[in-house]
Amino acid sequence: MTTTATRTAYAELCEVARETATLLSAEFLLAWDQETYMPEGAADARASQRALIAGLVHDRKTSERMGELIAACEADAELTADPATKADIREFRRDYDLATKLPVELVRELTEVGSRAQNIWRKAREQSDFSVFRPILERLVGLVRQKAECYGTPKGGELYDALLNEYEPGARAADIESIFTPLAERLSALVANLADNGTPPDTSCLDLKIPEANQHSFGMFILESIGFDLSCGRLDTTTHPFCEGLAPGDTRLTTRYRDERFTDALYGTMHEAGHGIYEQGLPKARCFGQPLGEAISLGIHESQSRMWENSVGRSRAFWTWALPHAKDKLGPAIAPCSADDLYRAVNTAQPSFIRVEADEATYNLHIMLRFDIERAIIRGDVAIKDIPGLWNETFKRYLGLGVPDDRRGCLQDVHWSFGAIGYFPTYCLGNLYAAQLWETINEQIPDLNDQIARGEFAPLRTWLNQNIHAQGRRYRAGELCERLTGKPLSADPLLRHLEGKLKPIYGLA
Amino acid sequence: MTTTATRTAYAELCEVARETATLLSAEFLLAWDQETYMPEGAADARASQRALIAGLVHDRKTSERMGELIAACEADAELTADPATKADIREFRRDYDLATKLPVELVRELTEVGSRAQNIWRKAREQSDFSVFRPILERLVGLVRQKAECYGTPKGGELYDALLNEYEPGARAADIESIFTPLAERLSALVANLADNGTPPDTSCLDLKIPEANQHSFGMFILESIGFDLSCGRLDTTTHPFCEGLAPGDTRLTTRYRDERFTDALYGTMHEAGHGIYEQGLPKARCFGQPLGEAISLGIHESQSRMWENSVGRSRAFWTWALPHAKDKLGPAIAPCSADDLYRAVNTAQPSFIRVEADEATYNLHIMLRFDIERAIIRGDVAIKDIPGLWNETFKRYLGLGVPDDRRGCLQDVHWSFGAIGYFPTYCLGNLYAAQLWETINEQIPDLNDQIARGEFAPLRTWLNQNIHAQGRRYRAGELCERLTGKPLSADPLLRHLEGKLKPIYGLA
Repeated sequence: MTTTATRTAYAELCEVARETATLLSAEFLLAWDQETYMPEGAADARASQRALIAGLVHDRKTSERMGELIAACEADAELTADPATKADIREFRRDYDLATKLPVELVRELTEVGSRAQNIWRKAREQSDFSVFRPILERLVGLVRQKAECYGTPKGGELYDALLNEYEPGARAADIESIFTPLAERLSALVANLADNGTPPDTSCLDLKIPEANQHSFGMFILESIGFDLSCGRLDTTTHPFCEGLAPGDTRLTTRYRDERFTDALYGTMHEAGHGIYEQGLPKARCFGQPLGEAISLGIHESQSRMWENSVGRSRAFWTWALPHAKDKLGPAIAPCSADDLYRAVNTAQPSFIRVEADEATYNLHIMLRFDIERAIIRGDVAIKDIPGLWNETFKRYLGLGVPDDRRGCLQDVHWSFGAIGYFPTYCLGNLYAAQLWETINEQIPDLNDQIARGEFAPLRTWLNQNIHAQGRRYRAGELCERLTGKPLSADPLLRHLEGKLKPIYGLA
Repeated sequence: MTTTATRTAYAELCEVARETATLLSAEFLLAWDQETYMPEGAADARASQRALIAGLVHDRKTSERMGELIAACEADAELTADPATKADIREFRRDYDLATKLPVELVRELTEVGSRAQNIWRKAREQSDFSVFRPILERLVGLVRQKAECYGTPKGGELYDALLNEYEPGARAADIESIFTPLAERLSALVANLADNGTPPDTSCLDLKIPEANQHSFGMFILESIGFDLSCGRLDTTTHPFCEGLAPGDTRLTTRYRDERFTDALYGTMHEAGHGIYEQGLPKARCFGQPLGEAISLGIHESQSRMWENSVGRSRAFWTWALPHAKDKLGPAIAPCSADDLYRAVNTAQPSFIRVEADEATYNLHIMLRFDIERAIIRGDVAIKDIPGLWNETFKRYLGLGVPDDRRGCLQDVHWSFGAIGYFPTYCLGNLYAAQLWETINEQIPDLNDQIARGEFAPLRTWLNQNIHAQGRRYRAGELCERLTGKPLSADPLLRHLEGKLKPIYGLA
């Protein structure tokens, strides 16, 4: 029976959660600013600011009142008869149970050390010197292990799963391994086959010098065209591109420009725009702070970014539409290129050093490498000082290249510098979800390809919005995948997609 | 007798204050971002974020524990035997007594409505339409009056003094009026004399088209040269230039560029740099959150900005040094100009509409106009809807010009839009303090002028740092003025300075 008291409990729960999210969003701005505009000298103050707010947020997330309100809602059969509300309360419970396992001191320390480590990582990366980063990374990994131990090893799982669960609720390293291992084999075989037997596409249309301002102007045009709302967001430049869904009406993307290979910035921008369109599609205005207003998991989040970057952006249809606009915005250097030249060039599959610039096929091997190393770190099988060696050895095994320096090796990514261990595998899950969803979307929007070739992105965006974005955390990732595609997650769609696209380009079809 | 308990009380007081300041600094970033990079669609969320943090800060500032700690420190004779500590505790008491007069709901509402009003003001200003701004300004002024009433009218004073006291501790409107009235008369007479009998300088060296990028590059060079530390600060572009002393190691300036009159941006930048050098000179690393780590008053703050802008930047010595650099950075347009051309042109005294672009002499008349209107608003002598009419009428009286539209009239300033009433008079006080201090500094650094002509700004900066910046709030403004100059504040130095400079330029010496 729903009494006024429990109706009020749910309303109060949502109200408290909204206030907590509002406070947390100030921490998000501090984090965004740290990556974009913060002066170097502010690093210490910034670490204190972020740690203070993270502590206040944690206190609120774990308050006794939160526990009482959640329990009151759970006990109310009429309230939980509504499936969306039921899911909201289920996820409130999950978050509360997780949060209450962590002492506030640990949360503050993780935030403070993570904030400092980010600045130190940036310097170490510039100097390509792992030894600069090592001491603080050791401290940070110690804190992350403490966090994992607070969460506890799940039954039948490993300690690493406790971290994974933060980013991909319910995921297990062993399950991921059982998908990744055969995927790695088939991908390595594909890449080797292309290299040994195929004719790589001509990439001279990418080796153009295009000024940053022109690249930015093209990127902004693409953002507008695919439907990222710039009145509720922005695009800046950072070392490591990211998307921050800061608050209702405030979703911020970053990218980075190089004079050569304008497609690095373009696909970086489209990737982050995919995250941004998800963030903008969440019902935050109504449900800010409630699970129903939040993204399901990082894997699903990444499926959205990879879909816009790869399924859309690396298609022939995309270049058919985009080419005249590219010629208009990017300047005369690109004038001689055809849509087919670009389509083929951006689908080169070739081992390279930098994950965020890797092609669609080898990208997944970059992730598997990180997944292996992270698990080894958490298991205690590898000391922090041995990361560069292990990185380079594993890189050689997966991608066949000798890493020339740490900047292009184990120092390239920002994630570990803020203590995000268990995050990387979600990137590969994202590719898998994207490929599987893409097959379904093409069945349900049969002329999708023609729409893209005409620059009509609204039907795709509407499909994603209705089926994924607007749902918040109503479904877990695996459940959503099965509901939408009719099947559990599998590596087949991604392999079908890559083989179907790359073999013809390499003259092997 | 100092017991361990009271030593601990002072340490705890400083610790609590540091944490409160750390939290408040997150609100400062939210405010800075709102003016610089925030997407339009985030306005509502931003108002909530700022109000939430303002409320939390107020709760901390007014906590019972704060009261107990201050009382314990006050009762400790040995602790207060140290003059700096005594001043710190005196100012802690002042802030606490003021803060506890305000209910937290009012503080939150003022912040929230002020944040919204700022966005609405920006639109109203663009459209030059006061009616867009009027409804929220009415609400905001209502809240500001409530705040003044919570503070209470000081004995023998008026309600407006309660607001003034926030910005200029202890100042009274009647005292200010007694300086402003004769100053207005003598300034009006001076400006009229120059207009009627003098030959205005040739300003063609300012009427040059100089690209924004060149102006920015020159501005950055000036910042570095005068000693604003860019590793602990930055310069951005906003509608209304400001300086935000955000946190230790984080002082942010803004300016605005127009293609014509490059000196508007230059002096805007030097002005904010004056504020910034004060903020960077405060002992924040050691005393963040304590009065000893904070600026004395807005009048003294403004004395620093006006000194760098006017006493330094509008001197012949400055242009002697700066001209070759200007020619290097600003491009060929400025090549034909001499240092004397520039010195004379930037010292034109001529009524104009925009306060922040006004010359040194007429600037003060802009302030007096605002002071009159603010007092009338708080007295209830004028309705909000009648502000444009009153503005235009008073402007005519002080400056002799008919205001063409609200954009160039009562909508030009940001201050009222965030509820800052009682703030404007501190600008004129700043000019008065600057002129009086400048006479003293020139006595104590006799070759200051030659130093400036050689681009040597360190001795001036050191003088300001030791005598003003490093002192925090140890002395009140009037006390500091007397200590340093040997006299109470008077209008004479400013009038001496203006007459001594302008008459020769206008050929009346």
